[in-house]
Amino acid sequence: MHAVVKERRAPGLTLATVPKPSPGPGEVLIAVRHAGMCGTDLHIADWDPWAQGRIHPPLIVGHEFAGEVAAVGDGVAEIRPGQSVTAEGHIVCGHCLQCRTGNSHICRRTQIIGVDRNGAFAEYVVMPATNVLPLEGIPTDIGAIMDPMGNAFHAVLTAEIPGSIVFVVGCGPIGCFAVGVARAAGAAKVIASDINPKRLALAARMGAHVTIDAGREDVARRVHEETSGEGADVVCEMSGVPSALHQALAAVRMGGRVQLLGIPTSEVPIDFATEIIFKGLTLYGVIGRKMYETWHQMRRYLGAGLFDPRPVITHRFPLARIDDAIAAIRSGDAGKIILEIA
Amino acid sequence: MHAVVKERRAPGLTLATVPKPSPGPGEVLIAVRHAGMCGTDLHIADWDPWAQGRIHPPLIVGHEFAGEVAAVGDGVAEIRPGQSVTAEGHIVCGHCLQCRTGNSHICRRTQIIGVDRNGAFAEYVVMPATNVLPLEGIPTDIGAIMDPMGNAFHAVLTAEIPGSIVFVVGCGPIGCFAVGVARAAGAAKVIASDINPKRLALAARMGAHVTIDAGREDVARRVHEETSGEGADVVCEMSGVPSALHQALAAVRMGGRVQLLGIPTSEVPIDFATEIIFKGLTLYGVIGRKMYETWHQMRRYLGAGLFDPRPVITHRFPLARIDDAIAAIRSGDAGKIILEIA
Amino acid sequence: MHAVVKERRAPGLTLATVPKPSPGPGEVLIAVRHAGMCGTDLHIADWDPWAQGRIHPPLIVGHEFAGEVAAVGDGVAEIRPGQSVTAEGHIVCGHCLQCRTGNSHICRRTQIIGVDRNGAFAEYVVMPATNVLPLEGIPTDIGAIMDPMGNAFHAVLTAEIPGSIVFVVGCGPIGCFAVGVARAAGAAKVIASDINPKRLALAARMGAHVTIDAGREDVARRVHEETSGEGADVVCEMSGVPSALHQALAAVRMGGRVQLLGIPTSEVPIDFATEIIFKGLTLYGVIGRKMYETWHQMRRYLGAGLFDPRPVITHRFPLARIDDAIAAIRSGDAGKIILEIA
Amino acid sequence: MHAVVKERRAPGLTLATVPKPSPGPGEVLIAVRHAGMCGTDLHIADWDPWAQGRIHPPLIVGHEFAGEVAAVGDGVAEIRPGQSVTAEGHIVCGHCLQCRTGNSHICRRTQIIGVDRNGAFAEYVVMPATNVLPLEGIPTDIGAIMDPMGNAFHAVLTAEIPGSIVFVVGCGPIGCFAVGVARAAGAAKVIASDINPKRLALAARMGAHVTIDAGREDVARRVHEETSGEGADVVCEMSGVPSALHQALAAVRMGGRVQLLGIPTSEVPIDFATEIIFKGLTLYGVIGRKMYETWHQMRRYLGAGLFDPRPVITHRFPLARIDDAIAAIRSGDAGKIILEIA
Repeated sequence: MHAVVKERRAPGLTLATVPKPSPGPGEVLIAVRHAGMCGTDLHIADWDPWAQGRIHPPLIVGHEFAGEVAAVGDGVAEIRPGQSVTAEGHIVCGHCLQCRTGNSHICRRTQIIGVDRNGAFAEYVVMPATNVLPLEGIPTDIGAIMDPMGNAFHAVLTAEIPGSIVFVVGCGPIGCFAVGVARAAGAAKVIASDINPKRLALAARMGAHVTIDAGREDVARRVHEETSGEGADVVCEMSGVPSALHQALAAVRMGGRVQLLGIPTSEVPIDFATEIIFKGLTLYGVIGRKMYETWHQMRRYLGAGLFDPRPVITHRFPLARIDDAIAAIRSGDAGKIILEIA
Repeated sequence: MHAVVKERRAPGLTLATVPKPSPGPGEVLIAVRHAGMCGTDLHIADWDPWAQGRIHPPLIVGHEFAGEVAAVGDGVAEIRPGQSVTAEGHIVCGHCLQCRTGNSHICRRTQIIGVDRNGAFAEYVVMPATNVLPLEGIPTDIGAIMDPMGNAFHAVLTAEIPGSIVFVVGCGPIGCFAVGVARAAGAAKVIASDINPKRLALAARMGAHVTIDAGREDVARRVHEETSGEGADVVCEMSGVPSALHQALAAVRMGGRVQLLGIPTSEVPIDFATEIIFKGLTLYGVIGRKMYETWHQMRRYLGAGLFDPRPVITHRFPLARIDDAIAAIRSGDAGKIILEIA
Repeated sequence: MHAVVKERRAPGLTLATVPKPSPGPGEVLIAVRHAGMCGTDLHIADWDPWAQGRIHPPLIVGHEFAGEVAAVGDGVAEIRPGQSVTAEGHIVCGHCLQCRTGNSHICRRTQIIGVDRNGAFAEYVVMPATNVLPLEGIPTDIGAIMDPMGNAFHAVLTAEIPGSIVFVVGCGPIGCFAVGVARAAGAAKVIASDINPKRLALAARMGAHVTIDAGREDVARRVHEETSGEGADVVCEMSGVPSALHQALAAVRMGGRVQLLGIPTSEVPIDFATEIIFKGLTLYGVIGRKMYETWHQMRRYLGAGLFDPRPVITHRFPLARIDDAIAAIRSGDAGKIILEIA
Repeated sequence: MHAVVKERRAPGLTLATVPKPSPGPGEVLIAVRHAGMCGTDLHIADWDPWAQGRIHPPLIVGHEFAGEVAAVGDGVAEIRPGQSVTAEGHIVCGHCLQCRTGNSHICRRTQIIGVDRNGAFAEYVVMPATNVLPLEGIPTDIGAIMDPMGNAFHAVLTAEIPGSIVFVVGCGPIGCFAVGVARAAGAAKVIASDINPKRLALAARMGAHVTIDAGREDVARRVHEETSGEGADVVCEMSGVPSALHQALAAVRMGGRVQLLGIPTSEVPIDFATEIIFKGLTLYGVIGRKMYETWHQMRRYLGAGLFDPRPVITHRFPLARIDDAIAAIRSGDAGKIILEIA
């Protein structure tokens, strides 16, 4: 089958022909229809320090996808060939304290497809049946990006949203999704900031009432002006940029909540007294998707028409044009990029 | 009446004779019996940069106290002369969003007695009736330290304690109280760390199962050893020391909760990715006491004999020996210091 | 001034001329602009057994209102003459365990205006300043019905609504408000039932996706059909009708939540095993409005345009036509009835 | 192997010799060491209407047990032969909404061992590996009763216990366990009621501060006397007796929480207005054990020595004396009865 492969410990990705996998006991073989590109894929392509420490080539990359069940292994009863499905890409141990108490998303033995084992930029992928989620009528191009949408749902819906003022810091695809989720969940006002006007325009299309150009405006002051001087009830920090992290802490109201999803690449000096403690804040580190509560929520929102991620999809390429897809993501102007596989 | 006064914008505290106050409408005059010394009082005595920016002499200092109601102002029906009482030292506006939604402890217009208005190191103090809490049989030397005990109750009881492993970082008086509260609330194991063996001994007397000398041991490793490699469920950071803050984040388990109470004096560089986000942590900034849920909890614990703060009380001085009290707190070896006033 | 008065221990209400009240210390005099009629007013007019046991004539009735501040008593700083305001009609003690721990809405010493002391169907009413809430731009005819709207906000927003399927049982005014609040808070589907087609039509106007005529359809079966056989995540029982209470328990999903607001007039036999325990349900008794979190939420929703109660307002009468207003409410077809006072 | 079998659709249980089972893929064969008797076993022995509707003989009965792993089936990696283990007796589907969102304990497809499939009153039992829990040093006679202990942990620890006044209604084994769990979790006062003095004595041994003889005393009045007139913060209704259910609702404070575990055998008339709604109560139906959070909590409490169930164990019999065990449970005076199997 065709697949996008990290072949060597060096920059680059290769469109290769590799053996089609087959499902073992408890596993499902899925014919991939659509896949989503993620910044992680760019790190792997570029062979940056993170990738050098984590990736063991050869490896099929890609962790966001949806498709059709082609075959099931022994002991799989609840998933049937022909079903349209997506999958949680974090494969967890199932036995540790976290897995046994409803927190699989922070299992320390997590293996991520396309990172720690073969992924989904391929005609077929094998997944444990537990990770497979029927799409229940959701089209596969939407299903393919439920992984990053799930990060946004996790970030937003673990805060109290109905009636709240929500400030989303950073309008990459997950930030834009967060804007839409906050609107759908009944936020009274959604404010979004970024330094890129194209991304701010996407955030506005996803429903942001107010957009702030962080390159030109005093972000925290602007948020306070938009909130009668109180600050935002909930802040979703999706950028990982140190200055934006400080803006997040400055823009949240006394007693508010800051959801931390963006990953700073180095240490950020924090004044715990004035930025966190005296404000009585709650901070929460968002990683992955709650298994499988977040997925249930997504299917509900998508099924009910409460949330539409399509404005965020800016590019679509066939698998063979993986280099163009990488170039688009590298430009910084792209929203979500879809690979069309079959 | 006699009072300990900050007279000038310079180091030092003075035992002075000042006019006895009288209660206005809605206020209560309290004859102080016992008062507690706090690090804040030392900052004011030393006239450190924080004090220089916040304190406007002349000012009667002291914010921890208990005594007997001497008189009540117009419109005060629920408090009666002769009652034994303590009081919440944070005087809040009552009208802001925080005050109107159960979060007075983070009212932005908070005035603290002994800091922003006259305090309790005096024979008499006037308080708003709303802030006054009947002791219901608790002796006044215990009542006098319910303010810092309340910080510990707030820090501990806003986490899920029954059956949890709790790690208390820093064994000053509030840390030692936190150890006792965690034990009383059903923690399965309480671990405490400090660099001062005297403080560790106090923590052990308050019920710590394990004490760690942070000057000699690898704290995070030790906590992991004591927790089957998982880390602590709940960490209470009571020290404000940068290295201890990192230990707190390293010692908490995946998905755990870190209560931040200790105040670092400068910025602390944090690796948000590995120290917070990838661990799926929740952090909470602890300031003051929940008004008045925390006070209700304290009266319950003290009344039921679940919690006894007395091992933490290491010194008692009459008001006239304020200089000796300051010296004791400066030594770093003191637990809680009580001033005996009447 | 003119006022609607319960003059004697007998059926009927009288439009009378009574002395204009004046505000004492801590109180506010409000010139009433609009008031809302409630079923309670009908009980008082009809002098039913509940009224006979609770009401002590003579009494000015009415507890839902909004108007303009005419004067303030001593010590009132935060409310100014000329402000447009509404008020919480439950006057609580402020000192009991419930009041001191954020649960004033269940203070056992609650006095309700128009029931236990003079109310708001009058040109002027006096309220404690604490109970007065600035309308912040909300018109007084909407402000006048924030009391019953608040019951609906309390019922809905103490459940987890974003993405949920919500079933509202009973489409009187509070049920219809609940439909609108559930929509605004991001419910994936809102189902409403009643036996009165006019009320079902109001529920549909407030946003119900599905309406069920309880007189003609098998309610629980219909809810299960609309929920893929699962049942509703959240049920708001607003009717107080015994058969509807059973439908509520039958229609909620395993592990769901039932908000109980409707007041049955007699005992209802419950099969605790199959209706509650084996389903792992949570039931919550809704009384009044959270003070003042619910009011904050309402101002947010109304200010943001998330919620519009106006479709529920079906009648408007001047105060002098109180008899017509009573007749309209007695008909059973009315939504909310507004009295126009000044 | 020897086993206690329900052979026919008629009263009685038989000690029989049956084939030793063997584990399939994903299953574990356990050599049973100790088992616990439950009221359910008595219902099956007596062939009461519930048993007639649910049980399909022939069936090995018994659902509470612990033992040693004898063999594991294909694909079982985390459980090893020789391990000392107990098991959750509810076998769930793993795929439904409840199972996928952390609520397996209310999976509608639950099969219970000893009820819906062969159980544990036998030398060997086969369990899905997912249901098997290593005892981590807990002896098997304690491990054998973690199933009913888990009901008590679930009932108590889903309420807020530290500092609370807890009232346990009904002192059968699960009620007595609940007393001990409430004490361990930091309840300020534990009150227990029953009509049987022997059971009250057991409750006192488990730590009840106050015991109330419900046959002689006015239970609700007594609870109010013990709680300064407020009522209990948390009530655990463990009896299923209609009069006790009313006592539970009368004894809980305004805004309190009632955990419903006891199963009434018929409908109970409830005055929703005064018993639930006007008090602002929360009710919660307790079924089974949270999978597997409750089990984690139990191992923590037992491992830390916070909780000791042994006072509740009143009888021990070898498997062959099943008739004596049945007689003891029928007497009503027994606490927990242990069967010694190997």
